[in-house]
Amino acid sequence: MSWVISDNRLNKDQLLVNESLFSQGNGYLGVRGNFEEGYTDNMTSIRGTYLNAFHDETAIEYGEKLHAFPETQQKLVNVIDSQTITIDIDQERFSMFEGKILSSSRTLYLDKGYSERLIHWLSPNGKEVKLCFRRLISFVTKELFAQSIHIEPISSIDEVVITSTLNGDVSNFVDPSDPRVASGHAKRLHVVDVDQQEDTHSVINETYETKLRVSCVTRTEMKAENYNYHIEKMESSVNETYRFNPDQTVQFTKYNVYTDTYRHGENLKECGLKLQEQLSSDSFEELLTKQKHYLDAFWNKSDIQITGDNELQQGIRFNLYQLLQSVGKDSVSNISAKGLSGEGYEGHYFWDTEIYMFPVFLMTQPDIAKQLLLHRFSILDAAKDRAKEVGHKKGALFPWRTITGTECSGFFPAGTAQYHISADIAYSFVQYYLATKDKTFLKEYGAELLVETARLWIDTGHEKDGQFRIDDVTGPDEYTCIVNNNYYTNVMAKNNLQWAVRALEIVKGYDADAYKQLLNRLSVTQVELAEWTRAGERMFLPYDEKLGIHAQDDTFLNKDIWNIEDTPKEKFPLLLHYHPLTLYRYQVCKQADTVLGHFLLEDEADIETIRQSYDYYEKVTTHDSSLSYCVFSIMAAKLGYDEKAYHYFNETARLDLDNTHKNTKDGLHMANMGGTWLALVYGFAGLRVKEEGLAFQPKLPEEWSSLQFRVQYEGKTLSVNLMKDTVKYALIEGDELSLIHLNESVTLTGNKTVEKKM
Amino acid sequence: MSWVISDNRLNKDQLLVNESLFSQGNGYLGVRGNFEEGYTDNMTSIRGTYLNAFHDETAIEYGEKLHAFPETQQKLVNVIDSQTITIDIDQERFSMFEGKILSSSRTLYLDKGYSERLIHWLSPNGKEVKLCFRRLISFVTKELFAQSIHIEPISSIDEVVITSTLNGDVSNFVDPSDPRVASGHAKRLHVVDVDQQEDTHSVINETYETKLRVSCVTRTEMKAENYNYHIEKMESSVNETYRFNPDQTVQFTKYNVYTDTYRHGENLKECGLKLQEQLSSDSFEELLTKQKHYLDAFWNKSDIQITGDNELQQGIRFNLYQLLQSVGKDSVSNISAKGLSGEGYEGHYFWDTEIYMFPVFLMTQPDIAKQLLLHRFSILDAAKDRAKEVGHKKGALFPWRTITGTECSGFFPAGTAQYHISADIAYSFVQYYLATKDKTFLKEYGAELLVETARLWIDTGHEKDGQFRIDDVTGPDEYTCIVNNNYYTNVMAKNNLQWAVRALEIVKGYDADAYKQLLNRLSVTQVELAEWTRAGERMFLPYDEKLGIHAQDDTFLNKDIWNIEDTPKEKFPLLLHYHPLTLYRYQVCKQADTVLGHFLLEDEADIETIRQSYDYYEKVTTHDSSLSYCVFSIMAAKLGYDEKAYHYFNETARLDLDNTHKNTKDGLHMANMGGTWLALVYGFAGLRVKEEGLAFQPKLPEEWSSLQFRVQYEGKTLSVNLMKDTVKYALIEGDELSLIHLNESVTLTGNKTVEKKM
Repeated sequence: MSWVISDNRLNKDQLLVNESLFSQGNGYLGVRGNFEEGYTDNMTSIRGTYLNAFHDETAIEYGEKLHAFPETQQKLVNVIDSQTITIDIDQERFSMFEGKILSSSRTLYLDKGYSERLIHWLSPNGKEVKLCFRRLISFVTKELFAQSIHIEPISSIDEVVITSTLNGDVSNFVDPSDPRVASGHAKRLHVVDVDQQEDTHSVINETYETKLRVSCVTRTEMKAENYNYHIEKMESSVNETYRFNPDQTVQFTKYNVYTDTYRHGENLKECGLKLQEQLSSDSFEELLTKQKHYLDAFWNKSDIQITGDNELQQGIRFNLYQLLQSVGKDSVSNISAKGLSGEGYEGHYFWDTEIYMFPVFLMTQPDIAKQLLLHRFSILDAAKDRAKEVGHKKGALFPWRTITGTECSGFFPAGTAQYHISADIAYSFVQYYLATKDKTFLKEYGAELLVETARLWIDTGHEKDGQFRIDDVTGPDEYTCIVNNNYYTNVMAKNNLQWAVRALEIVKGYDADAYKQLLNRLSVTQVELAEWTRAGERMFLPYDEKLGIHAQDDTFLNKDIWNIEDTPKEKFPLLLHYHPLTLYRYQVCKQADTVLGHFLLEDEADIETIRQSYDYYEKVTTHDSSLSYCVFSIMAAKLGYDEKAYHYFNETARLDLDNTHKNTKDGLHMANMGGTWLALVYGFAGLRVKEEGLAFQPKLPEEWSSLQFRVQYEGKTLSVNLMKDTVKYALIEGDELSLIHLNESVTLTGNKTVEKKM
Repeated sequence: MSWVISDNRLNKDQLLVNESLFSQGNGYLGVRGNFEEGYTDNMTSIRGTYLNAFHDETAIEYGEKLHAFPETQQKLVNVIDSQTITIDIDQERFSMFEGKILSSSRTLYLDKGYSERLIHWLSPNGKEVKLCFRRLISFVTKELFAQSIHIEPISSIDEVVITSTLNGDVSNFVDPSDPRVASGHAKRLHVVDVDQQEDTHSVINETYETKLRVSCVTRTEMKAENYNYHIEKMESSVNETYRFNPDQTVQFTKYNVYTDTYRHGENLKECGLKLQEQLSSDSFEELLTKQKHYLDAFWNKSDIQITGDNELQQGIRFNLYQLLQSVGKDSVSNISAKGLSGEGYEGHYFWDTEIYMFPVFLMTQPDIAKQLLLHRFSILDAAKDRAKEVGHKKGALFPWRTITGTECSGFFPAGTAQYHISADIAYSFVQYYLATKDKTFLKEYGAELLVETARLWIDTGHEKDGQFRIDDVTGPDEYTCIVNNNYYTNVMAKNNLQWAVRALEIVKGYDADAYKQLLNRLSVTQVELAEWTRAGERMFLPYDEKLGIHAQDDTFLNKDIWNIEDTPKEKFPLLLHYHPLTLYRYQVCKQADTVLGHFLLEDEADIETIRQSYDYYEKVTTHDSSLSYCVFSIMAAKLGYDEKAYHYFNETARLDLDNTHKNTKDGLHMANMGGTWLALVYGFAGLRVKEEGLAFQPKLPEEWSSLQFRVQYEGKTLSVNLMKDTVKYALIEGDELSLIHLNESVTLTGNKTVEKKM
């Protein structure tokens, strides 16, 4: 059961949520788990097909617009619909909501990479038929979305009609009731070409503002004795009809190939046609085999096994699978807040990537992690432009939310003001270096990014009374905006500044010429280097002596404390029920950024401060952000709060599967999915990537019998197996690896397993 | 010259500014100083006719909308155009931009209350004519806008055609280039009735959303030997044509009567017709006489005479006249940021009323001041609703900008967050009591308003370590938003809390039954009274020991100081060139609110702190707000910085006449106009209204020979005349008045003048 997600009830209230849960994708192309045949007229569906980064632009309207407020917003576009297929059985249209469902099941195979719907249907007029719908989005050929339908007549049936549609007349979904979901104009593209080739047909759409084009070339195959075929080219769609007498089981297959001007250039349709030609030799079954092969390799590196709790096991596998389905694997795309599973947050990329998802890929699929960094590097120039626009003299200010690098946030106190995103991105470049020791990458990309972000901090902050202070930014906790010396921001900026210096030193040692060229090209002076060092050393990290904790910001601890306990349950999440000013006025956190700061940079505080901070901030945190639980789980594990660690982990692992945030219909909470992995590996196993190597502080929750996973480090593969009292380390690939277990140095060689007490 | 505003050049670049400067109004009705005949096709005009508080509603769009963000905005509507009159001289249309202007002058008579255009025109074909256009908006009959045209033929002319239009097809003006000016949908009303009566005709318009109606009933008169008359009723207008041979001078008069559903109910048209009937006995000359009579009474109380500087004399008279023209004199209207002179700031009422304009009326026309308070009282319930909506358990949160009481600010950090407006309104109720000692008003209105605003502060702030603190508000300085313990806000809230207690005590002493009823009706408990006293006593007023000044807020003084000197001139006002976050990050003030706090509540700080604050904040203030100069002038006068007091006064007195802020075209800066008066009376004459009576600390700028004005106090009229070394006080009306001159108590009786050394 832990390798599948399944649903055997047909609960109408769950349909939209299932569209997200059963969504499929490969990081390039994503299709929501809609029914091929649709629902009935009065039922809402978010029917969607998305290409990562494929977007249009809409104007952002403001009540009052001030200088450098972004004028336009990018928006992931719902593209050409190719999934629609209807089936008529003796003039009765098949529907899950007509006649009688004698049995039905729906399954997403996490190990095989496809989904399946099995339905035994009795029509209103008493015709009986078994149907099997399968679909896959290929990990091997990213442009391909393949569908297969088996039809098995049970009663006597005279005629079946399969109508397959390729439809360019599509819109984005609008739900005006939830402010967290995108509003704006729903129709973002129009049809520019409908065409029919020898054995394929195609539609091309173009977005209204960005003029990006997407093409879908479709090919269908019918395996039946005799059938009557008809194809009709309409204004914005192509309809194919297969009409036949179903003596025996028939199979219908549909291959849809998506290409776009982003990746395929102006000849996108020709690319699609060519791909179809190449693919024509593969049957649906052969595609399934290739898919399985790809996933075997993935799970070999990424699987986590929890013994003792099937539900959690299923949760973590589902999360990892969805991360794989969502992550962009080319340098023009990243991983959006909802992946490719929905339209929430407009398909934008946030800090979620760096802090919650990047580490998963870094430690299991470092090549994908590298692509994520390359995407950020590709928007460095845009970030430099944005810094200037806002009023900085130098540096790179990364956008809070974006697709191609322009700031898309329409509410700056919880958007542009989150300057920490620049430090978060810098942090992930450092993490990449630490985990891979890839000096070439540091020389070519990392150092430059660290330099430009370090410059931002110098221009943003200032020294006063020997302290380097950063005023008027917003930390990750959006319940307190525009503050001075946010602990998280300052400590991350400190790391950024120090690593800018450090990275240049490493480059210098590695390639002295490259170092000189770099300094020259970026006009880095020795004075500037000294500035970074000084600012890093003197970075002000607000500390409260009485409480023995780092203050979230200069004045957070002076505020009144929100009474969380006496707040009615229906008033959560607070942001939907209180004006931001009311929230800002209290000590109340959507997520605790000080605790997160202590996780990411634990050497910046002693353990007692970390413990006291945890104890303090836990009391004022509502976890209204889905990014909150995992951090609390990790830090609880570190601090020996075992029950809490387990409790918070439980909240993260099945957040979408159980729809605990009530908005899974808009798409999956990708960052939380990364957070689940972090809670296991950084939390229970206590992994940290330090300069001196990997370090573990493992502790298995008593509810489980074991926890087993693998990580990648410097090109080597390490297997870690936490059991009741001991942990087993084994080097699966690589010659030798030293790690720190608790405080002890352990050296692994060959394929030998080392067992240690916890 | 000091009783007139005139313009004898026809500078195209000045036309829009002149439309504001020559605007006329009476607090109910306002018409911009447009030309009757219009300009030419390619020239921009903001052609406008406004009724105070007559508004429509438009949706406020947000990039991201959070809880309790206002959904709609009110917008002053440009109503029916009645001013349009064209003149054809032998088939040539008269225009200031065709043919040749042999001479022209335009004059606004501040003492007589009308404007006049005299033009000697030579047409392209050589026809010569003298024209005189006069217009007045009656102070006696608020609905009346009257126009008169004299035409004197100089060369031989065969035919003159006068076409007079009443036009309901009107829109608001949109200038997309300036974010400080309203955007939104320009067309806000439509014609619902066009009618022709015996000797009048009329148009009724209705707004799209608020369904308010405005009617204009027009009557015209022609004094000429023979003429041919034609009237034509169109879809949305009525055109009258008078065609005649001009043997001698002819006079054409047009009487336009505006009524609306706000003031005149559903029978607005009938009201207009009746008013026209009543007015029909008055000639234009008789209207002028009545107007003069009204203004004589006004100037008798309000005039300020400066001997020694005609430009400033003109400036102050113009400002006072415009204040009179703009101020609402009924309880449904107030005085908007641009008066009735333009569409800037949507016709909204701000704190400008309480802090910059109310005192002028309070001390010269207390009946008008009372109406302003009654308007605020009328929206008290809306303010209580708003407090609840934002998340408060009790109290009244007044909207930052509004017409009828709903919050219309679309950017809360510089809108809703300016909680001080509630204290400002409370302050003006206290000032009214101090200047009038009107205990009945206090009992009926003032006490309740003070109670509900005091409740807001208790619910907003909290006590910590013996200090009552108010977090996350914005002070008047919009270059630093969302701060804790803004000095201005806290000191005003303190006054609010203490006066809530005080006002109830006064009511108790005056009418014990009323006191009990009031406590009962408002559910005020003794516990609550004690809370207000305690919070007032313990109000935290941030103070910096090292600098010896009150800090603008908790962290203002820790920020970096903006380098004003090295900022290029074209970068001012800063808000048009820097993202708000960049501005927030520095010690830089649009206006200095700490200095303003010291002005309004001078007993809250000792003179050295006040001086040091002035010195400090002056250096970091850009005066990008037109509300800044006057406060600096007043406080410079108090501190003996004579040159500065004079310099800043100069900046305020002619701000619009000289268009120094470059946006007078959008309407006049009414608050600054009030500020001019404040600078003279509170600044140079050093007036303060204290509980123990009026106090003066006069000092005449050495550039002048004298400064003379009158103030009203407890129903008495006091004349004050500052000369070189002495000041003369005289009681003009009333039996006896005690005042404090410097530190000396002076008692005035009868009409005797007392002369004192300064």
